[in-house]
Amino acid sequence: MGDSYILYDDKFNEECGVFGAINVSNASEVIYYGLHALQHRGQEGCGIVSSDLNEMYKLKGEGLVTEVFNEDNLSNLLGNMAIGHVRYSTNGGGGIENVQPFLFKHHTGDFGLCHNGNIVNSNELRRFLEIQGSIFQSTSDSEIFAHLIKKDNQTNRVEAIKQALNRLEGAFAFLAMTRDKLYIMRDKNSLRPLSIGTLNGGYVVSSETCAFEVVGAKFLRDVLPGEVIIIDEKSNITSDFYAQKTYKNMCAMEYIYFSRPDSDIEGINVHTSRKETGRALARENPVDADIIIWVPDSSVSAALGYSEESKIPAEMGLIKNRYVGRTFITPSQKMREKGVKMKLSPVRSIVNGKRVIVVDDSMVRGTTAKKIIQLLRDAGAKEVHLRIASPPITHPCFYGVDTSTYDELIMARCSINEVKEMIKADSLAYISVEGFLNAMGRSQLCLSCFTGNYPTYIYQDIQEANKDGKF
Amino acid sequence: MGDSYILYDDKFNEECGVFGAINVSNASEVIYYGLHALQHRGQEGCGIVSSDLNEMYKLKGEGLVTEVFNEDNLSNLLGNMAIGHVRYSTNGGGGIENVQPFLFKHHTGDFGLCHNGNIVNSNELRRFLEIQGSIFQSTSDSEIFAHLIKKDNQTNRVEAIKQALNRLEGAFAFLAMTRDKLYIMRDKNSLRPLSIGTLNGGYVVSSETCAFEVVGAKFLRDVLPGEVIIIDEKSNITSDFYAQKTYKNMCAMEYIYFSRPDSDIEGINVHTSRKETGRALARENPVDADIIIWVPDSSVSAALGYSEESKIPAEMGLIKNRYVGRTFITPSQKMREKGVKMKLSPVRSIVNGKRVIVVDDSMVRGTTAKKIIQLLRDAGAKEVHLRIASPPITHPCFYGVDTSTYDELIMARCSINEVKEMIKADSLAYISVEGFLNAMGRSQLCLSCFTGNYPTYIYQDIQEANKDGKF
Amino acid sequence: MGDSYILYDDKFNEECGVFGAINVSNASEVIYYGLHALQHRGQEGCGIVSSDLNEMYKLKGEGLVTEVFNEDNLSNLLGNMAIGHVRYSTNGGGGIENVQPFLFKHHTGDFGLCHNGNIVNSNELRRFLEIQGSIFQSTSDSEIFAHLIKKDNQTNRVEAIKQALNRLEGAFAFLAMTRDKLYIMRDKNSLRPLSIGTLNGGYVVSSETCAFEVVGAKFLRDVLPGEVIIIDEKSNITSDFYAQKTYKNMCAMEYIYFSRPDSDIEGINVHTSRKETGRALARENPVDADIIIWVPDSSVSAALGYSEESKIPAEMGLIKNRYVGRTFITPSQKMREKGVKMKLSPVRSIVNGKRVIVVDDSMVRGTTAKKIIQLLRDAGAKEVHLRIASPPITHPCFYGVDTSTYDELIMARCSINEVKEMIKADSLAYISVEGFLNAMGRSQLCLSCFTGNYPTYIYQDIQEANKDGKF
Amino acid sequence: MGDSYILYDDKFNEECGVFGAINVSNASEVIYYGLHALQHRGQEGCGIVSSDLNEMYKLKGEGLVTEVFNEDNLSNLLGNMAIGHVRYSTNGGGGIENVQPFLFKHHTGDFGLCHNGNIVNSNELRRFLEIQGSIFQSTSDSEIFAHLIKKDNQTNRVEAIKQALNRLEGAFAFLAMTRDKLYIMRDKNSLRPLSIGTLNGGYVVSSETCAFEVVGAKFLRDVLPGEVIIIDEKSNITSDFYAQKTYKNMCAMEYIYFSRPDSDIEGINVHTSRKETGRALARENPVDADIIIWVPDSSVSAALGYSEESKIPAEMGLIKNRYVGRTFITPSQKMREKGVKMKLSPVRSIVNGKRVIVVDDSMVRGTTAKKIIQLLRDAGAKEVHLRIASPPITHPCFYGVDTSTYDELIMARCSINEVKEMIKADSLAYISVEGFLNAMGRSQLCLSCFTGNYPTYIYQDIQEANKDGKF
Repeated sequence: MGDSYILYDDKFNEECGVFGAINVSNASEVIYYGLHALQHRGQEGCGIVSSDLNEMYKLKGEGLVTEVFNEDNLSNLLGNMAIGHVRYSTNGGGGIENVQPFLFKHHTGDFGLCHNGNIVNSNELRRFLEIQGSIFQSTSDSEIFAHLIKKDNQTNRVEAIKQALNRLEGAFAFLAMTRDKLYIMRDKNSLRPLSIGTLNGGYVVSSETCAFEVVGAKFLRDVLPGEVIIIDEKSNITSDFYAQKTYKNMCAMEYIYFSRPDSDIEGINVHTSRKETGRALARENPVDADIIIWVPDSSVSAALGYSEESKIPAEMGLIKNRYVGRTFITPSQKMREKGVKMKLSPVRSIVNGKRVIVVDDSMVRGTTAKKIIQLLRDAGAKEVHLRIASPPITHPCFYGVDTSTYDELIMARCSINEVKEMIKADSLAYISVEGFLNAMGRSQLCLSCFTGNYPTYIYQDIQEANKDGKF
Repeated sequence: MGDSYILYDDKFNEECGVFGAINVSNASEVIYYGLHALQHRGQEGCGIVSSDLNEMYKLKGEGLVTEVFNEDNLSNLLGNMAIGHVRYSTNGGGGIENVQPFLFKHHTGDFGLCHNGNIVNSNELRRFLEIQGSIFQSTSDSEIFAHLIKKDNQTNRVEAIKQALNRLEGAFAFLAMTRDKLYIMRDKNSLRPLSIGTLNGGYVVSSETCAFEVVGAKFLRDVLPGEVIIIDEKSNITSDFYAQKTYKNMCAMEYIYFSRPDSDIEGINVHTSRKETGRALARENPVDADIIIWVPDSSVSAALGYSEESKIPAEMGLIKNRYVGRTFITPSQKMREKGVKMKLSPVRSIVNGKRVIVVDDSMVRGTTAKKIIQLLRDAGAKEVHLRIASPPITHPCFYGVDTSTYDELIMARCSINEVKEMIKADSLAYISVEGFLNAMGRSQLCLSCFTGNYPTYIYQDIQEANKDGKF
Repeated sequence: MGDSYILYDDKFNEECGVFGAINVSNASEVIYYGLHALQHRGQEGCGIVSSDLNEMYKLKGEGLVTEVFNEDNLSNLLGNMAIGHVRYSTNGGGGIENVQPFLFKHHTGDFGLCHNGNIVNSNELRRFLEIQGSIFQSTSDSEIFAHLIKKDNQTNRVEAIKQALNRLEGAFAFLAMTRDKLYIMRDKNSLRPLSIGTLNGGYVVSSETCAFEVVGAKFLRDVLPGEVIIIDEKSNITSDFYAQKTYKNMCAMEYIYFSRPDSDIEGINVHTSRKETGRALARENPVDADIIIWVPDSSVSAALGYSEESKIPAEMGLIKNRYVGRTFITPSQKMREKGVKMKLSPVRSIVNGKRVIVVDDSMVRGTTAKKIIQLLRDAGAKEVHLRIASPPITHPCFYGVDTSTYDELIMARCSINEVKEMIKADSLAYISVEGFLNAMGRSQLCLSCFTGNYPTYIYQDIQEANKDGKF
Repeated sequence: MGDSYILYDDKFNEECGVFGAINVSNASEVIYYGLHALQHRGQEGCGIVSSDLNEMYKLKGEGLVTEVFNEDNLSNLLGNMAIGHVRYSTNGGGGIENVQPFLFKHHTGDFGLCHNGNIVNSNELRRFLEIQGSIFQSTSDSEIFAHLIKKDNQTNRVEAIKQALNRLEGAFAFLAMTRDKLYIMRDKNSLRPLSIGTLNGGYVVSSETCAFEVVGAKFLRDVLPGEVIIIDEKSNITSDFYAQKTYKNMCAMEYIYFSRPDSDIEGINVHTSRKETGRALARENPVDADIIIWVPDSSVSAALGYSEESKIPAEMGLIKNRYVGRTFITPSQKMREKGVKMKLSPVRSIVNGKRVIVVDDSMVRGTTAKKIIQLLRDAGAKEVHLRIASPPITHPCFYGVDTSTYDELIMARCSINEVKEMIKADSLAYISVEGFLNAMGRSQLCLSCFTGNYPTYIYQDIQEANKDGKF
């Protein structure tokens, strides 16, 4: 019983979210609500840079949007233009220096900058820039991009930006802002989502469309692969492309786990895609059982799909405590031996004596699955069948996903049968890549963590990562 | 569109939760995890009193369990006995003085005390005690009970307690603790839940059984109506009754909304009872529609029941933002006019063009329902049918439920049809009292908020309340 | 060198300060500034109770006046009457429960209460009250007094108060407040100071007159020994006495160390009295030297007097760091061995090669003196002569002074010569009791800590204290 | 009476302090105590960068040393080398970005950097660097210096540093640190103090010598004008000079007001210099009076000197409240009209009926002096004579002094007689420049704020400042 303790999810974690607005009155307030809707993409820190055409204002801090901002400090972020950022917690990482947006001071005009994603050739670029005299204060890719732009002593700013973007390899969604213009940029592989909406005659831009609904904006369109959109203080909007060849490689994990169920990514609703995946999973991997239970909260949609397809009722067999915050005292070994459970607890009267199907959206290391299965057995489950609504994760991601768990991608090292034994499930099945693509109804996806087929050059980073002992 | 703003739920609110432990090593740590599991019953404040047989220790504060306690201050709460309390936020109320448990200092021995519930004749008792020289520092019923015990200058403590309990009219679950004994008391109408469990040879007691699973305890039995249980430092356990006539009148709202779905109340699982109610609701009040959506989070169970019975798929048509904390900036009127939504946002791509059934567990004032329906229509719903998985609330509660909304019990003043018009639903239906009782499979419930049949004398409080202009 | 570390002063410490106002607009703001002026009398906690004739309001907390109160929460303390309290930090003591004022709730009317001082027979009174059914929530003497008043079920409130005061033995200055009256009470031995002033037609009352200057009030008179003053909401003022025999026994330590130099106590300015004492000390105990240095901050006045009388220049030979707050990290043993000094550092270029006279106002344990002398020698002082501007402390105090250091009243156990050896001074001298009284120009003082002649009955407390191992 | 309100001192304010250590175990702890001793030089923010030869660590924050650092976070700053900084609050300025030290990341090795002082040609240098591609994140001179070093793509680091220093015009004391070396640099005019000491075989460096005494270090020598000292991890120490011509122009204000009285600046103790200035002031500007009072805290030394020379006794006629922190509620106009006083209050019983000499160390705008004189007259002073222990300030400073008050250098616009009338003094006198130099016993001082003779080129900054409307 000793090990039945769960605090952290066994998931990939998104790195960031961005939100911008231009020609919208009280832009920083709108950003506040927009970032709040994107909070699931990053809880470590957040910031806003605004402009009233004359001056630029910045505020950022560590913590949630509701912790960093209050009415007083928001009211200092003047102007009808602003960009904002939420940042995911990295291991031992950087502190306030790495919280975005950055506000760079320059005699040609200050500019703010933030991004979501990860630059694959950042180490090479940083070396290249340092040799030419640049010095850095953060480890952020945004600072590299800023140096790249300024290094090209171009008179034409848009050309400088396009040249700089061409040097970047990887996944990114950039928002940049000068005193009177908003720049919106997306990588040519379109790995990270970025969409534009309209609000009272102005424009908003967001990592996810869920934020549009929250601030009362109307979805306009997705930013295209390799596109550079510039909107000025009179709402003139121009579009350009930094790359000649562009690709559609949306990260599949955005559908599977990262995004909020009410977001639409490139025209497909996230909840709906998960439910369809759950249905397909039920068709591919049926099993006779009494009840289906979901792992709160992300796999509700997939479990409902599985239930509808299989006609087996979905039940609330696991409860998640909503009040687990940063200050929660993790149970000591002694307490865990006593049986103290955290975050997830099984519902004995629901699972007792039952054959249970557990549907989860994804599985990285298998550690949490093992504990959940043990919890359910301790609560009297007769059988526990685990069904995963995404294909096995066999390769690391280099495009802006938390890498702290790559050393233990369980499906990179073991067969399904071995994993089944390890986590002590009665049966274990994943949806196939084909089944997944069919359920999604689209094939233009980055599936590299399932297949190893990376859409970009990635060599240098793997080498670096190897040095750090990460894989 | 202006009014489409939702921050607070339109629900009754529970007042408190209690948790105790005796003869359990590191009792205060166990209480910490127990209170954490009961956090949904009260978020304003919490406290713990412990005893190491020689001395008693106390710590309490305003805020969540994770905010008030940390490893340092918990480690000062020594001993193998402790009681704890979580308290709901009251309007303009009391501050730290009213946070429990109380620790009373007395030459016959200090004692700790906390409770869940509400004493109906508290004003009379307070007056009676003051005339005899008592002075009070809080407005809590617990302090009244403490004075009542000490007023009876009995040599026999148990008799003093029983006499004091006999003077109390209303709903209560009391935990009291001296240096070496734990006292567990429940009102003779058994309006509030209270259960006992065992843990490593010691005992635990909790407002809800969900906390037993979390701390690794085994459910033993419910405390009986009118029972006074005493457990000493050697785990001797004695049971007595303060009243000759006792009744089974468990608060129906505990099943409908207050309790966690993984709790079992008097043998019936909360999630299961809600799902059955949802099924019955579907049978009683069917309607042709495309999808069913739940109002997060409490009505998931009922919606699933309705879906299974009606064969209409359940979808995630409303999303709740999990990061709405106490420091959230409520949108200004200007922002709300812009369409800023909080806490709940509709999922356009799911509801657009659909005939929607919304299942909610209960409805007090109708204000939130009106906004939800508007949200859904703005998001493109063709029809919106509201189904409530509890009977209409027509009478106020006097037994420990937040009273701030009694002035607007919409069903006390309006017909169902009037309410339907007011909230602009295409149809509105509640489950009937009979249907509810059938679905619950038990009849011994307090249904006074639906029927006006109060199980206790309540006259004096209504009078007082009238003076305060509450009804 | 290892021991040359100073963080805490070797002084007696005052327990509390009180400030009240009636018929003064925004009374709570006036109290704020008054308490701020009395902050030196207590830094642990503070509170204010106000009344707008209809309702009473309370706010209290742990910390400084500037930490507990802000514009928001002050603005909730409505009305033109208020009382406030600052409290000194006690060892391991009580927390928020013991912070004053108390606000007692009673059907005959709520009342606020706070005090400065110490009741000698508090244990007896508490026992007496508990036997009659009282229960206590704090260890404060104010709560005892409140119970005593209510216990006497008198119709005449003033008589009840006077009877209650007659049962109290010890030192006290009480402020009590009902919705429309302020009660001001001082013990019959007048051990603790309490003065009344006028402000814009209303009245203020304060432990020290320095607060009158700060709030712009005019000193009216001292409260007399045993006096009970009542001021109502129309500024009617009545005076009565609870005791027939009264005495003038002002605590000598108020002049020597506790009070602010700008306060006048019973007509004598504190700075002036200290300077006179310094002059007398110079006459009684001259010594040939090059410079005089004071121990910051309290002995500046005495050192200036000594300097003027002896014609030896006063220099700043010790510097006190003003930024030592509660969160200061005390140097580890390793750091202290390195020579890290805190709070006080010697000024090498001033004391090097000099014969130094150090003037201090009082000395309790001698520990700090020893370290100061070592510091000065390490900085090059040729000779160090210590002169104390008060008589030797040979007996404990029972009248509201911090008792944490009574176990080591060095002059209760050793001769002056022994102490001189112990602290390694070249010479040590105290002012005599006679010299002190002459310098003060008044003889009606409590000198019990120098002489052991206590003005009140004290037997029971010593017994209790012995049990606790305090002496 | 209405205007008698004092919260802020009418003084020049120092910008910063620096402290470094190398080859000292637990260097960051030593820095903590060193910065704490320099806290009077800056209260807005502070930071420490340390190195354990392999890695560099940084922590900085807004607030006092005791607020930013605690045992936990200090223990993460590993290594036997560290540099630290305290920063003064600037108007509306920069936030955390401008708190030092900076830690720059570079492939040739990270380096930390902090400074005290002000670069006069910073705008020119910033423009020059930006044109070559640099971008900035702060407005600090240290960031400019870092870019200058890296811009010179020299193989020889010391030469790069010397060339960079040669481009800087102004006042500075720089500390730089790589993983294994400490660099100590002082401007060629030696405007800002910087001294080296030894501690257990290692070295420490500090803006003021007072910090040496506190950490147990021994003063070694002052850093020379234009000197670049390098100390490596084996305590090899080398000295070099970046400029051929160097000058001795120590800021006179360091003696008059900025530095702690226990510091020695270039061989002269600060307290002693102030006392001598007070004596000279008494000789130059005698006046018949009953008492002398000082303005707490900085003018105690000068007042004692004046008293000794004039034989008029020095008294405590003004009291400063020690508890005025950042959260202090400033009295509203209504309160000030009532007479609420802050920070300084007069002692009526000392000044009443007296002819008073007030000695202050310096006067910038005259606003505080006016209020003090009013306070004293309201408290009954018959005459008030103001004596200033420094020459009249007639010119702005460009060398690292808070510039927020330059628009109102009262002596730049008015005659002494006009000022006397304005502040309503009975007489007003300043010490003459000659008298000041004689009292100091040294002539090599920067007196530019008294004379307008600036030791460096300053044209460009004045122009910039004019644009900002500062003069």
